[in-house]
Amino acid sequence: MKQSDLSNLVQPFHVMELVKHANALEAQGKPVIHLSIGEPDFPMPEPVQQALIKAVADNKTRYTAALGLPELREAISTYYRTAFQVTVPARQIVITSGASTALMYACLALINPGQEVMLADPGYPCNKTFVQMAGGIPRFVQTREENNFQPSWDELNQNWKPQTAGVLLASPNNPTGTQLSSSDMKEIVQEVAHRDGFTIVDEIYQSLCYDNTAQSVLQITGAPCAQWPLVVINSFSKYFGMTGLRLGWMVVPDALAPAIERLAQNLSICPNTPAQWAALACFQDDTLKICEQRRQIFKARRDFMMQSLPLAGIEIQSTPDSAFYIYAKAPFDSERYCKELLEKALVCAVPGKDFSEHRGTTMMRFSYANSMENLELAVERIRRFNSQT
Amino acid sequence: MKQSDLSNLVQPFHVMELVKHANALEAQGKPVIHLSIGEPDFPMPEPVQQALIKAVADNKTRYTAALGLPELREAISTYYRTAFQVTVPARQIVITSGASTALMYACLALINPGQEVMLADPGYPCNKTFVQMAGGIPRFVQTREENNFQPSWDELNQNWKPQTAGVLLASPNNPTGTQLSSSDMKEIVQEVAHRDGFTIVDEIYQSLCYDNTAQSVLQITGAPCAQWPLVVINSFSKYFGMTGLRLGWMVVPDALAPAIERLAQNLSICPNTPAQWAALACFQDDTLKICEQRRQIFKARRDFMMQSLPLAGIEIQSTPDSAFYIYAKAPFDSERYCKELLEKALVCAVPGKDFSEHRGTTMMRFSYANSMENLELAVERIRRFNSQT
Ligand SMILES: Cc1ncc(COP(=O)(O)O)c(C=O)c1O
Ligand SMILES: Cc1ncc(COP(=O)(O)O)c(C=O)c1O
Repeated sequence: MKQSDLSNLVQPFHVMELVKHANALEAQGKPVIHLSIGEPDFPMPEPVQQALIKAVADNKTRYTAALGLPELREAISTYYRTAFQVTVPARQIVITSGASTALMYACLALINPGQEVMLADPGYPCNKTFVQMAGGIPRFVQTREENNFQPSWDELNQNWKPQTAGVLLASPNNPTGTQLSSSDMKEIVQEVAHRDGFTIVDEIYQSLCYDNTAQSVLQITGAPCAQWPLVVINSFSKYFGMTGLRLGWMVVPDALAPAIERLAQNLSICPNTPAQWAALACFQDDTLKICEQRRQIFKARRDFMMQSLPLAGIEIQSTPDSAFYIYAKAPFDSERYCKELLEKALVCAVPGKDFSEHRGTTMMRFSYANSMENLELAVERIRRFNSQT
Repeated sequence: MKQSDLSNLVQPFHVMELVKHANALEAQGKPVIHLSIGEPDFPMPEPVQQALIKAVADNKTRYTAALGLPELREAISTYYRTAFQVTVPARQIVITSGASTALMYACLALINPGQEVMLADPGYPCNKTFVQMAGGIPRFVQTREENNFQPSWDELNQNWKPQTAGVLLASPNNPTGTQLSSSDMKEIVQEVAHRDGFTIVDEIYQSLCYDNTAQSVLQITGAPCAQWPLVVINSFSKYFGMTGLRLGWMVVPDALAPAIERLAQNLSICPNTPAQWAALACFQDDTLKICEQRRQIFKARRDFMMQSLPLAGIEIQSTPDSAFYIYAKAPFDSERYCKELLEKALVCAVPGKDFSEHRGTTMMRFSYANSMENLELAVERIRRFNSQT
């Protein structure tokens, strides 16, 4: 059976082999500790859970408008005003099936086949696929650890070509847990616009930050109305702990909204309806209080990991101030190291291959979306394993 | 801001203007009757609703495997065996965010940029967009009313070119509510395979059929293991009344499964988790009994509409035996007719433009996803309107 070129281009998640291996060990009764997880270890906040149950009980289960429930778009607009002091009209907010579908719409609406899109290396593995599905060519820009693995405009500029369409960034980023500074972000968005390109900024880990107050690129640029060719991606998955609900949103310039609506109508019909009603509860005070408590817990874990991992023999060159990841140097080839760490120490952390073309074998990612008790145990196991190899 | 060529190619739903107009009239207190709706007017079956609430209460809200819950893939495999007497191993079943996402994966995995894909005209408006998003070129094949608006292999064959990649069909189809005969279906799948092409068959309205027992192309071809380059699309939206839950599935040949898994991992992460747990309840006896009762209700409505619409001055040339649509001749230009019918008779049926290149202005679609009481009232209004024009 003939398959498309795209289907051969698309990479599997290499980490899945390791995770399957971990699951097999667990099935044998081995107490594996997962530092591999890309989702919060907390359940959905209770008010959101209750709102979801109520939506289902009230039969709110039919198709909605393609751009999402007007009420939810309004609520997100209000959230931008109260939490970030920025004006984003509801008409520029589009509800999507997770940041995933938002990234898809953005790439399909902005990239022409054969155009290049710059991606920071390391970064979220799926970004290249979104570019490729639109016929675009991902161009990885190597970042420096002194720069917290985020690109500067200079580095992007050096890679800019006539066929470059724009830039796709994440701040905070996965796997690094680091942010772009406001000044770097501003420079990038401005300079890219001067070159007639677009900037997509993925803010899915916004609010999961531990050393400064959360920020949005929208604060820097002001409302994205006509001025900036800027698309902002966000999600209910991480800060609001709704991963399996598949709900996110995007902020688009007015000029782009009709194209996004057409894509959404045709490709998705609408996002999950009960999830949209439930998400309204995310912006209530009681939910935000729970999310804030969890942020504090993540912060304590981050502090613990940053202090104890180096003592256990893991070198960390950047300062992760956000998300729930630490990007670190593997003591030896990261694929082999992670495999041995799993088999011999029952700790599952992930090698760098999925996240980076340049640092695939040297770097690895630790997730601290796990209890402090498990983190302490894991670090002790890592220390013992490292001291034996 | 520069937009992609695709974003300009993608058509809006023209019917949305009419629906907005209808909503505006309703907001003024006018009792519009909707014969425009593409989803069942029933709520989700109660056992499914209860299962969904339970899944949420049990915190089943995290990411699942990209291909979907193994339990649900097994349940669908069992359903094929018990309801259709056909063996479809769970490993070939992929859970998706509605038939929409299944159509997307199929097109991305099978079509190369520049290749043509044949679509029956009339058909589901989004099909062309799925082809286009993969870089393919939709080639509409005009069908005949004597053939219930379904294509024959001869008609497809006449349009086959060196750059043709395959065929995308729906049986039962939207907007026609008609099916392909088993013999036509078999011939198409076989002949397309001989030409090294693929056949995608959308069975989203399977089981909503009123004159014969429901069938699947999989019964005709046997299990799709290696033999047939055949992808089958299905959904929990229509027969199981779960539109807003965004859950569907596809059956793929073994050879294609790894490519679909890579696409799903990268583009979606996974389908909505509580919806997947809830869908397990679809195959329980009590749910199937409710769905069967609803099918009987749809059948009675279909019979009523087929009998009374011609008496009210609407010409119907085909025999809709499935879905909840009747595709009929508009007394005059369908766009103008539907607008006037809405404004003067407060009945909202939809013009043909979205569904057909060839019959956009002559044909229209009535949906009978509405109560018998409303259908009777609507037909009486249509009769009076037609007798005055
Ligand atoms: C940086 C980044 N963007 C986007 C996503 C997609 O998340 P979702 O589709 O659940 O919103 C993820 C998930 O891990 C991510 O890490
Ligand atoms: C023929 C056909 N296919 C696919 C779909 C998509 O449905 P869903 O994504 O809700 O499963 C529809 C919706 O109306 C349809 O009519």
